Amino acid sequence: MNDLDVALIKSQVLSEALPYIRRFAGSTFVIKHGGNAMAGGAIDEAAALDSFARDVVLLASVGIKVVVVHGGGPQIGEMLGRLGIASQFVNGLRVTDSATLEVARMVLMGKVNPEIVGAINKFAPLAIGLSGADTGLIVASRAQGDLGFVGEVQSVQPDLIIRLLEQGLIPVVATVAVDVMGQAYNINADTVAGAIAGAIGAEKLIYLTNVEGIYANWPEQDSLIRRASSAEVGSLVASGAISEGMIPKLTSCLHALESGVSSAHILDGRVEHSLLLEIFTDSGVGTMVTREEAS
Amino acid sequence: MNDLDVALIKSQVLSEALPYIRRFAGSTFVIKHGGNAMAGGAIDEAAALDSFARDVVLLASVGIKVVVVHGGGPQIGEMLGRLGIASQFVNGLRVTDSATLEVARMVLMGKVNPEIVGAINKFAPLAIGLSGADTGLIVASRAQGDLGFVGEVQSVQPDLIIRLLEQGLIPVVATVAVDVMGQAYNINADTVAGAIAGAIGAEKLIYLTNVEGIYANWPEQDSLIRRASSAEVGSLVASGAISEGMIPKLTSCLHALESGVSSAHILDGRVEHSLLLEIFTDSGVGTMVTREEAS
Amino acid sequence: MNDLDVALIKSQVLSEALPYIRRFAGSTFVIKHGGNAMAGGAIDEAAALDSFARDVVLLASVGIKVVVVHGGGPQIGEMLGRLGIASQFVNGLRVTDSATLEVARMVLMGKVNPEIVGAINKFAPLAIGLSGADTGLIVASRAQGDLGFVGEVQSVQPDLIIRLLEQGLIPVVATVAVDVMGQAYNINADTVAGAIAGAIGAEKLIYLTNVEGIYANWPEQDSLIRRASSAEVGSLVASGAISEGMIPKLTSCLHALESGVSSAHILDGRVEHSLLLEIFTDSGVGTMVTREEAS
Amino acid sequence: MNDLDVALIKSQVLSEALPYIRRFAGSTFVIKHGGNAMAGGAIDEAAALDSFARDVVLLASVGIKVVVVHGGGPQIGEMLGRLGIASQFVNGLRVTDSATLEVARMVLMGKVNPEIVGAINKFAPLAIGLSGADTGLIVASRAQGDLGFVGEVQSVQPDLIIRLLEQGLIPVVATVAVDVMGQAYNINADTVAGAIAGAIGAEKLIYLTNVEGIYANWPEQDSLIRRASSAEVGSLVASGAISEGMIPKLTSCLHALESGVSSAHILDGRVEHSLLLEIFTDSGVGTMVTREEAS
Amino acid sequence: MNDLDVALIKSQVLSEALPYIRRFAGSTFVIKHGGNAMAGGAIDEAAALDSFARDVVLLASVGIKVVVVHGGGPQIGEMLGRLGIASQFVNGLRVTDSATLEVARMVLMGKVNPEIVGAINKFAPLAIGLSGADTGLIVASRAQGDLGFVGEVQSVQPDLIIRLLEQGLIPVVATVAVDVMGQAYNINADTVAGAIAGAIGAEKLIYLTNVEGIYANWPEQDSLIRRASSAEVGSLVASGAISEGMIPKLTSCLHALESGVSSAHILDGRVEHSLLLEIFTDSGVGTMVTREEAS
Amino acid sequence: MNDLDVALIKSQVLSEALPYIRRFAGSTFVIKHGGNAMAGGAIDEAAALDSFARDVVLLASVGIKVVVVHGGGPQIGEMLGRLGIASQFVNGLRVTDSATLEVARMVLMGKVNPEIVGAINKFAPLAIGLSGADTGLIVASRAQGDLGFVGEVQSVQPDLIIRLLEQGLIPVVATVAVDVMGQAYNINADTVAGAIAGAIGAEKLIYLTNVEGIYANWPEQDSLIRRASSAEVGSLVASGAISEGMIPKLTSCLHALESGVSSAHILDGRVEHSLLLEIFTDSGVGTMVTREEAS
Repeated sequence: MNDLDVALIKSQVLSEALPYIRRFAGSTFVIKHGGNAMAGGAIDEAAALDSFARDVVLLASVGIKVVVVHGGGPQIGEMLGRLGIASQFVNGLRVTDSATLEVARMVLMGKVNPEIVGAINKFAPLAIGLSGADTGLIVASRAQGDLGFVGEVQSVQPDLIIRLLEQGLIPVVATVAVDVMGQAYNINADTVAGAIAGAIGAEKLIYLTNVEGIYANWPEQDSLIRRASSAEVGSLVASGAISEGMIPKLTSCLHALESGVSSAHILDGRVEHSLLLEIFTDSGVGTMVTREEAS
Repeated sequence: MNDLDVALIKSQVLSEALPYIRRFAGSTFVIKHGGNAMAGGAIDEAAALDSFARDVVLLASVGIKVVVVHGGGPQIGEMLGRLGIASQFVNGLRVTDSATLEVARMVLMGKVNPEIVGAINKFAPLAIGLSGADTGLIVASRAQGDLGFVGEVQSVQPDLIIRLLEQGLIPVVATVAVDVMGQAYNINADTVAGAIAGAIGAEKLIYLTNVEGIYANWPEQDSLIRRASSAEVGSLVASGAISEGMIPKLTSCLHALESGVSSAHILDGRVEHSLLLEIFTDSGVGTMVTREEAS
Repeated sequence: MNDLDVALIKSQVLSEALPYIRRFAGSTFVIKHGGNAMAGGAIDEAAALDSFARDVVLLASVGIKVVVVHGGGPQIGEMLGRLGIASQFVNGLRVTDSATLEVARMVLMGKVNPEIVGAINKFAPLAIGLSGADTGLIVASRAQGDLGFVGEVQSVQPDLIIRLLEQGLIPVVATVAVDVMGQAYNINADTVAGAIAGAIGAEKLIYLTNVEGIYANWPEQDSLIRRASSAEVGSLVASGAISEGMIPKLTSCLHALESGVSSAHILDGRVEHSLLLEIFTDSGVGTMVTREEAS
Repeated sequence: MNDLDVALIKSQVLSEALPYIRRFAGSTFVIKHGGNAMAGGAIDEAAALDSFARDVVLLASVGIKVVVVHGGGPQIGEMLGRLGIASQFVNGLRVTDSATLEVARMVLMGKVNPEIVGAINKFAPLAIGLSGADTGLIVASRAQGDLGFVGEVQSVQPDLIIRLLEQGLIPVVATVAVDVMGQAYNINADTVAGAIAGAIGAEKLIYLTNVEGIYANWPEQDSLIRRASSAEVGSLVASGAISEGMIPKLTSCLHALESGVSSAHILDGRVEHSLLLEIFTDSGVGTMVTREEAS
Repeated sequence: MNDLDVALIKSQVLSEALPYIRRFAGSTFVIKHGGNAMAGGAIDEAAALDSFARDVVLLASVGIKVVVVHGGGPQIGEMLGRLGIASQFVNGLRVTDSATLEVARMVLMGKVNPEIVGAINKFAPLAIGLSGADTGLIVASRAQGDLGFVGEVQSVQPDLIIRLLEQGLIPVVATVAVDVMGQAYNINADTVAGAIAGAIGAEKLIYLTNVEGIYANWPEQDSLIRRASSAEVGSLVASGAISEGMIPKLTSCLHALESGVSSAHILDGRVEHSLLLEIFTDSGVGTMVTREEAS
Repeated sequence: MNDLDVALIKSQVLSEALPYIRRFAGSTFVIKHGGNAMAGGAIDEAAALDSFARDVVLLASVGIKVVVVHGGGPQIGEMLGRLGIASQFVNGLRVTDSATLEVARMVLMGKVNPEIVGAINKFAPLAIGLSGADTGLIVASRAQGDLGFVGEVQSVQPDLIIRLLEQGLIPVVATVAVDVMGQAYNINADTVAGAIAGAIGAEKLIYLTNVEGIYANWPEQDSLIRRASSAEVGSLVASGAISEGMIPKLTSCLHALESGVSSAHILDGRVEHSLLLEIFTDSGVGTMVTREEAS
């Protein structure tokens, strides 16, 4: 392209982006970090984390308040292996006994969380690591099923997050929490992201995953849905057309939308800057689910 | 281009622009509107004004505080003609006698200013028309030479502009002012733009003109200067290599830079969105003059 | 009079005035300036404007927030004549075609308005010229009848005026406004004064005219009314006893009183300091109309 | 006089007064109440107190912060007589032994002070009675001479007064104070008024007395001084031309002027509204002493 | 006791007290000072006042806002005797004629009040003497019965007290007040304490007396009540089991509790630090009456 | 003891404690938690942690801002053992290679820190876990010696801690930090506590240990020092009379005192409530080191 064409494209991208930037300044986004699922193809894990961190800092730089939520299943499994702790399984799900819980807490809070915090703070020293136990942020209760110390979110007390966001900081939340008796639990990160988004009145809830979005007819590539309403997603989930791993994400999306979140997004975390493209362009790159009917 | 290439370019433009958006949020820019010189080529006067107004509102939408300054020589001449008021000339410059002054004030404040205000307010009702006489904004004194009621800037009392900017408004300043005795004067708009930029501590002073920028060796196209220091521009002016019409602009740039303005820009107002491209891209599209040595 | 008598009178005037000064400090008055009708008798136009400006500054000095509203019919007519623009008339009213509108805007904003602003700013640099188009202050719509670009007030967005008043400034409003499509209109100044008074919750709406007040039985001198209720004025208007030119003023008074303004005043602007006497003495000098029954 | 003449005089008084009202709004005046010396001629004691209270409330109503200071020598003498407490005298001055002090405190705080507070509060409930002992307002020390518990002002801690004034209240100060050991003293009220005026940075210190002002050559009526500088008053005091009772007032005036008070006034409290006339008219009615040279 | 035992007790007292200190920081307590009834046994009047003052300053030091209310019957009687003013009695109650009222006001405001203020200010200069007449704090009306200028509380305007408390000061209120016509009255101090407590939304109303508390079956020592509900106290008063002098206190307690005060306390003022023990220990030392049922 | 004696002691403890409570309200204390060294004698580890947490919450309840700092050497060693990671030693000190660092970070941030946070939050949900990497709180650099990733404090950026304290929260800091390149280090907790105390302008720095305090002549029991100056402690350290493990504590004390901390304390953490006794009683229970000469 020649210079003039480049200038034309640039000025169009800017004209298109500025109204979004204006609109989202001061808004809060909760982003579920997809863990190592975000690496793949031409990009390794460290580079993926680095790219994610850079985008988060860019969002913060234009006044968007970002909360990052993460889990760390594979890393927990790896450490259990190193310590020779055998796991029981119920219906294919790992039972979190007390030894497992100790390891999960160490890995989530002492390994995965500081890695994400460190990646962000290399660009700007704004990230602060949190767990659900800090100042009673998340009160947990034991989840149904015989899975041991696997918890679910009983309530969220969002004051701490809100104040940190007001100070321009970026909370990075490890999904460990305690119940009213002080007992710790490990909680599914997709669920926690949705619950926090609802509790703090987030504008957007964004899941970074290793798929392009929601497919009406998986795995047909051209059945990718760009935009859907809560009702449509509800029907899809009910129809059984949705893949297993996507269910907790979509359920959490629907809950968050009911709690007042304006839109929920499923993005492919492996595409560089997919966050920026989804937020600041008209067409977006993933699936956006909104409360009202899609048109 | 295919979708992926487009996404790539978009994400690069955004990555490039966001740090500028962050950096300039809350900064003040004084923009000298170039009048009908901004029309030309494929774009007519109304469309040029419309495009300018849209860019100003986009800048305001991302937290940049914009002051617009304008003159209106051709329109004054046209109205003098309609009223059959003949002008005297001294060294080729029109003498502003009292009848001329009355017409100049009417045209600047009652015709040109409301047109710019109206164009901006169609996008967002943020523009407010001002003249130098409002709340003693500009105190004028009679300029040297026998040009009648042509004034120069004695002092700027910037409180009004600063407060309007703090309220998110866009002051549009017609360059009429009064002296301490209440006598009105017409003042060169390039000078007023520079004086206001200095007085309010603007980050940028931007002249929208009908040339691409400063040429080291006018009219050789490839002698266009992208970036220069005050010292370099001072040398150029002294060398006589600069075209006549550019002198007041460059002199005002140098004064403004001395008063604390960080950078002054000469842009081609006929290029659509040249404001956005100059401000939000690494390469820019015109000439940027900075206080410190260019590197 | 000897010194003691003078002291006695002075102390009585002060005792009488101070409670009014206390009561009105912080209140807002909208004053419709009567134009050249305010000159007459021993006082010429320039002196009348000067005297008016001095009183406005005195009011401001004791904490009264003053908004001045003005039209300029005669000056517009004069300029149309100079430009050789002939006018059509419908029922004796001038039709405002597009050429007339351009002239009206130039004269109101570029001539009458800066004259009033300049007169006030000679005493204290507090006046700022506005038109209804600034920041969408007044939204107009086309008035009924075939009068062209004669508008009526659709709505008032008073934020700008309120903020300027809070800063201790004196807005001077030219009665030009635009509709939602950006089309400009000329609007009757009496109507605009009443609409602004209602919208900003003014305490008083004051019309400076060339009559002493309202007469129950015009032109009988001793039928001058000092104080009347809305209901009484409504009856008078309905009875047809009121002179033609007074109707828009009284109609606007009644609307303003309905919108919450506490009292409306018709004063003789040709009497020096009539503003001060009406506001700060028990007896007053013109006609005061109040919402509740007069007693 | 006919109506027009009255209107003329009224408008002149108002034009003259408004700038003073503007200038003194927010200023602080310390007024030494002259006790029963303010009665005389056609006005009895109760009416004099009532008139004084009304003027104080008028001053407060236009934003002047007023502190009233009073003593009560005659009332103390009367109560000592009723209780049959005989007094010793040294050089003609009453010695304040411990029984006398108890009576002085009762009379000043329990009789004179509530009478002044009550008189003001009938017009507006703004007065609050204080003594120098409240929150350590005045720290006293024993005065020289063998006069027992007669104190002098060691220091003033003005926070309490300043905060009450900021709340729009009118402190009325009885001149009893304690020393650092908690021992109470009676202090000369002229001195206390001057010390408080200096400590709170008052604009004016005003003594209401039973003379018209300072006479250059007492008792020649036409030697009354309207305006004098500190230096001139200092010379007069040194020359011995000043009557005995005026000395503490003038000495306190000079100290207060040195401490930053702008002007000190000696007024005839027996002239009704002399406070208003002195403050709000060009000519005034008593003697004004200023820091700088009188011209 | 050895050092370890002492440390153990100390740490227990601290552990017990800290939660109360936390809970009451920022709360307001109204304390009725019991006058000379608080002396007795091993402690004389001056020492009792000193001990009271110290406790009040300690309460203030941990953020409790304290209002002190006092009467002074015995001191008034003594001064009436010294002045030879005979009193009439109706049903055994002294009639307050105008001479008596003058003495009562002098004694309460000029003798008792400054003694309490002075005692507190020896520890920290925080006390400020008030009467009900200051800034219209208490509006009185004539009480029923033929007792002359004995008043009752018509209304309380608590702004002054609230602002002084916000500044960290300790108001000490003498129970003199005026009616709407400016006539002064003497009012029962128990009643005033209750009315102020209700009006300012106090947390606690505390009566310091010369008994240990309320007895269910006076004078049986072991019928002392530690804690009672409003209802229980209401029944006791109705049953006639309560001693005469306790009735106004209990009636005022019940009114105050109805007005929103959380608890009312009857304490033995002769026990040193009884204030601290009642407030900061679990068991307390007197009788606490609460709104809700005691359990 | 009978009731009266108990009341006497209680009132004395309260009288003694209240001035300290007043003095320290709003002050900041940095407390180095002693780890499992705080257990011993009759109290097990869980009970010791529980007792510590309760005292911290009591301090917070009376307005003291508490920062807790901890290490966790024994727990790190235990986990290294479980993972079969052998350690190298240099001069008896464990070398922190990259595998060891990963374990240290997991144990400090994922095990020890959440245990302390959890213990506090059982009493009041105020604790928030931090590491030196959060928002760039501590910038580390590699310590001298060949100990691998053992760091020292390069600088402290205390904004985050100060803001959390202002919100009434209790930061609990794990002593892991990163250098400017993002490399993590483990740092000695005694040193970190002193550096933070200096950086945030703490009033007190408190080390909870398993000894009673500093001994002038260890291990002679009666050589325990209650109070010492910086100079005296400096001499003791220089003299070699101090036990090895106490050196980093005392060195950090001296640095903190130089940085503006008012006093540093060495307490026996095994004595229940030793924190309360040291802070709120005249005699204290450990060793207090102050900047100025002890007297």
